[in-house]
Amino acid sequence: MLPLHLQPESHIPLYVQLRDQLRALVHSGELRSGDRIPASRELAGHLGVHRTTVAAAYAELESEGLIQGHVGRGTFICKASTKQFSPPPRSSGNGGMLRWESLFADERGEDGLSRLMPEVPPGAIAFTVARPPAELFPVEEFRRCCNSVMRDECRSVLQLGSTDGYEPLKRNLIEMFRAEGLSVADGQLLITDGGQQSIDLLCKAFLRPGDSVALENPAYPGAVATLAGARIRILPVRVNTDSPAGLDIDALEAVLIQNRVKFVLLTPDFHNPTGTTLPVAERRRLLDVAARYQVPIVEDTIYARLRLRGGATPSLKALDRAGNVIQIDSFSKIAFPGLRVGWCIAPESVIERLRLVKQSTDLHTDQLAQATLAEFIRRGYLVRHIAKMKKVYRSRLEALEECLEKDMPEETGWTHTEGGMCLWLTLPPGFDAAEFLIHGRERGVLFVPGRYFYSQHPQPNTLRLGFASLDEDNITRGIRILAETLKQEIRKRHRGANGAAHARVALI
Amino acid sequence: MLPLHLQPESHIPLYVQLRDQLRALVHSGELRSGDRIPASRELAGHLGVHRTTVAAAYAELESEGLIQGHVGRGTFICKASTKQFSPPPRSSGNGGMLRWESLFADERGEDGLSRLMPEVPPGAIAFTVARPPAELFPVEEFRRCCNSVMRDECRSVLQLGSTDGYEPLKRNLIEMFRAEGLSVADGQLLITDGGQQSIDLLCKAFLRPGDSVALENPAYPGAVATLAGARIRILPVRVNTDSPAGLDIDALEAVLIQNRVKFVLLTPDFHNPTGTTLPVAERRRLLDVAARYQVPIVEDTIYARLRLRGGATPSLKALDRAGNVIQIDSFSKIAFPGLRVGWCIAPESVIERLRLVKQSTDLHTDQLAQATLAEFIRRGYLVRHIAKMKKVYRSRLEALEECLEKDMPEETGWTHTEGGMCLWLTLPPGFDAAEFLIHGRERGVLFVPGRYFYSQHPQPNTLRLGFASLDEDNITRGIRILAETLKQEIRKRHRGANGAAHARVALI
Repeated sequence: MLPLHLQPESHIPLYVQLRDQLRALVHSGELRSGDRIPASRELAGHLGVHRTTVAAAYAELESEGLIQGHVGRGTFICKASTKQFSPPPRSSGNGGMLRWESLFADERGEDGLSRLMPEVPPGAIAFTVARPPAELFPVEEFRRCCNSVMRDECRSVLQLGSTDGYEPLKRNLIEMFRAEGLSVADGQLLITDGGQQSIDLLCKAFLRPGDSVALENPAYPGAVATLAGARIRILPVRVNTDSPAGLDIDALEAVLIQNRVKFVLLTPDFHNPTGTTLPVAERRRLLDVAARYQVPIVEDTIYARLRLRGGATPSLKALDRAGNVIQIDSFSKIAFPGLRVGWCIAPESVIERLRLVKQSTDLHTDQLAQATLAEFIRRGYLVRHIAKMKKVYRSRLEALEECLEKDMPEETGWTHTEGGMCLWLTLPPGFDAAEFLIHGRERGVLFVPGRYFYSQHPQPNTLRLGFASLDEDNITRGIRILAETLKQEIRKRHRGANGAAHARVALI
Repeated sequence: MLPLHLQPESHIPLYVQLRDQLRALVHSGELRSGDRIPASRELAGHLGVHRTTVAAAYAELESEGLIQGHVGRGTFICKASTKQFSPPPRSSGNGGMLRWESLFADERGEDGLSRLMPEVPPGAIAFTVARPPAELFPVEEFRRCCNSVMRDECRSVLQLGSTDGYEPLKRNLIEMFRAEGLSVADGQLLITDGGQQSIDLLCKAFLRPGDSVALENPAYPGAVATLAGARIRILPVRVNTDSPAGLDIDALEAVLIQNRVKFVLLTPDFHNPTGTTLPVAERRRLLDVAARYQVPIVEDTIYARLRLRGGATPSLKALDRAGNVIQIDSFSKIAFPGLRVGWCIAPESVIERLRLVKQSTDLHTDQLAQATLAEFIRRGYLVRHIAKMKKVYRSRLEALEECLEKDMPEETGWTHTEGGMCLWLTLPPGFDAAEFLIHGRERGVLFVPGRYFYSQHPQPNTLRLGFASLDEDNITRGIRILAETLKQEIRKRHRGANGAAHARVALI
């Protein structure tokens, strides 16, 4: 019997677990070249998983050259491959070479963020990303701004700058906030390298290893990666997709009662990945609860300027009377993700601390990007660009919803999002989106399985559809293909359920 | 008797210690409004420090409004100031407002890096910085490169990129390394936001709180700040200014025998702050010792391309046969510090780990800067600019040495540096460079006291002179002023020694 133990509750897809465990058995020598492994149907029955799961794991191992099928004989471990995985040489008697793997501070699992950005084969339709489409970048306006910077400020931009941020960018951002109704003093603003860095800086300023942070579940995987890297305990709080949508404040309170939480991190507007928005009444409750338990709130407003319909909802920062909210934001979604510039709004003492932390992290943010974005704001290009992109995204979102409505089988559901770049689809019960993705990929359509976003209790039948960078045509074609594939899989399952009962088999 | 305890061994200048302790006594209520404090001469005698030290502390407290002198009566604690330092309001009954200070992960002391970059009053001559002069930036060439990027690659540069780095920059760097005699594969190179970030990423990849790192003493304070922020134990290793110069390999070995060290971090070429270069024989010994104790070496080569005289010394990376060296480097000193771009060369498994760490730190480095620097290399501008700047720096270094030779009193010494941007001056025994700086600043000349660079056992009579961003005229005038000031202080001391013996006084 092969020692295989799959964990259905893990955020790692079952087929990936199976693939990795089989590979490990080869490396450890428990499976040797020439050993026969069970047929996929047999192993599926034994493990109590769907046959697709085993087939997907086998397909990947075969493409790695680790196993090979022989017609009429079965599937075998290959000779060549076992060799290339020999253990690293020992440190003694090898000229003093280091065994680097033993020197790293932590074990690292599967590369979380890269899973979100898989290679897109040519011609494929990728609902994977939540980022602006490059073909609609206002390149001409950007060039004008960059030229103006190079003409007027080149030397100061190229010289070492201030950790706070490039002064004209801070000034123009503060002006923009004022026009939006938020009053921010210079000492309450820090320029960062983007949202990801803001989270990293908050970790360094507030957290020690073992501290706890309350985080949406599901959440932006970049936040999970940063917190995990800082050895922080993540306390997941349910995100509701029905009314009231967004972070479940009762669930949060239950977490705060039982744990000493250093801060709550959430994206109240057009949440990534679910697309939900926290209603204003819930925002007020959240502020009350946080004040009662003396816990800071970190509000990620990265999508907030991309409201595509419905009435405006004030930010937590705008509603906050006590000064307990730290807001993080970025140019990534509203302008150019390739320029790594974001910001953080917080009480002065917090900004002062974050500034010290940023100084020993990377001195300051790139100034050519800061200066160009300052000019981009000053000339009114940013406001204009956001307005234009909102029209584009609104039309794409409507196309997406129309197709889902028309093509998807009845047992499927999805969130009604009012903005941002993604919505959240729920497949019929019993489906695993990670396995469904295998079929989607075969037909040239990609998305991100929902389980990649959960830090606990994943719902395997969820998936994220990013709509911002696909035009209406691709959206229509992509959803049609997904819907057809899904219907086909549903039919297969019905057939399968009527077929022979699974037999338990002894392995090897 | 006031409970004052000065620590001459601390890296914090005596007058700062005194200032802070007096301030603390006011805040704690031990000194109250109207209390008389001793005259500076009295207190100096009691504490066994020079009168300048007390005068400097008093001057700062007076500028804060905390004390005031009254002619004929003495110096008193002020009323108004004791009020403005009332403790923060308690968290209960204040509308749920947070006491942020109690939420930060760590206590933070004096802001180490900002001390290195003090405000320079208009007209002052600042030997403080070790950075390229903005007026000699090749602005025209830079504009051409940026324009070319905006013309040919704008959309891809503005879109989200790869954590590894922008491909053309990696390619052109690898080409440059090859021309310099170092063969680097694509998988051995990671683009970072500069040297400071490289150290931060190494901390995250290799270190857990409480781990130990062997570091030069004195060292680049940015490295100390990052390590301290990561709660790392710094094991200081002496840097010799006489032959053999640079890191003391025997002292390092003594540290490695007694401690489990995660890595050794050093700047073997034109070390900041001492300007010393580790001879090739010592480099070989270092590699041997590190291999014997299985400790990785992190080599910071940020100044290495700025050799101004003497024969080339191979880098540790070039001498390393076992693959135990990680090299970090940056464009900051050879091109533009305002663009935050650097790199890291290491074995592939290390780069892969650093890549994961960087991904959850800030996704990737700004691409406009990366692409423009790629073009700057490709067109040969970087090589040409380095050659030009070396001539400029050589002439400045020679002017500096000539002035020191001519003007400085005999008891003064300095390092013979072969490149980089600074040299290390030793004042006569008994002098404290932090106090000497007060006199220098009064006469319009700034430098950085040596004690800011030590993590242990500071030599208070050392200071760093950065020569790269001052022209020969300013260097000549600045050194002349410093030399005159120093001679004057020496004369004062001689007079003081012949004066009345210090009396011990009861305070208050």
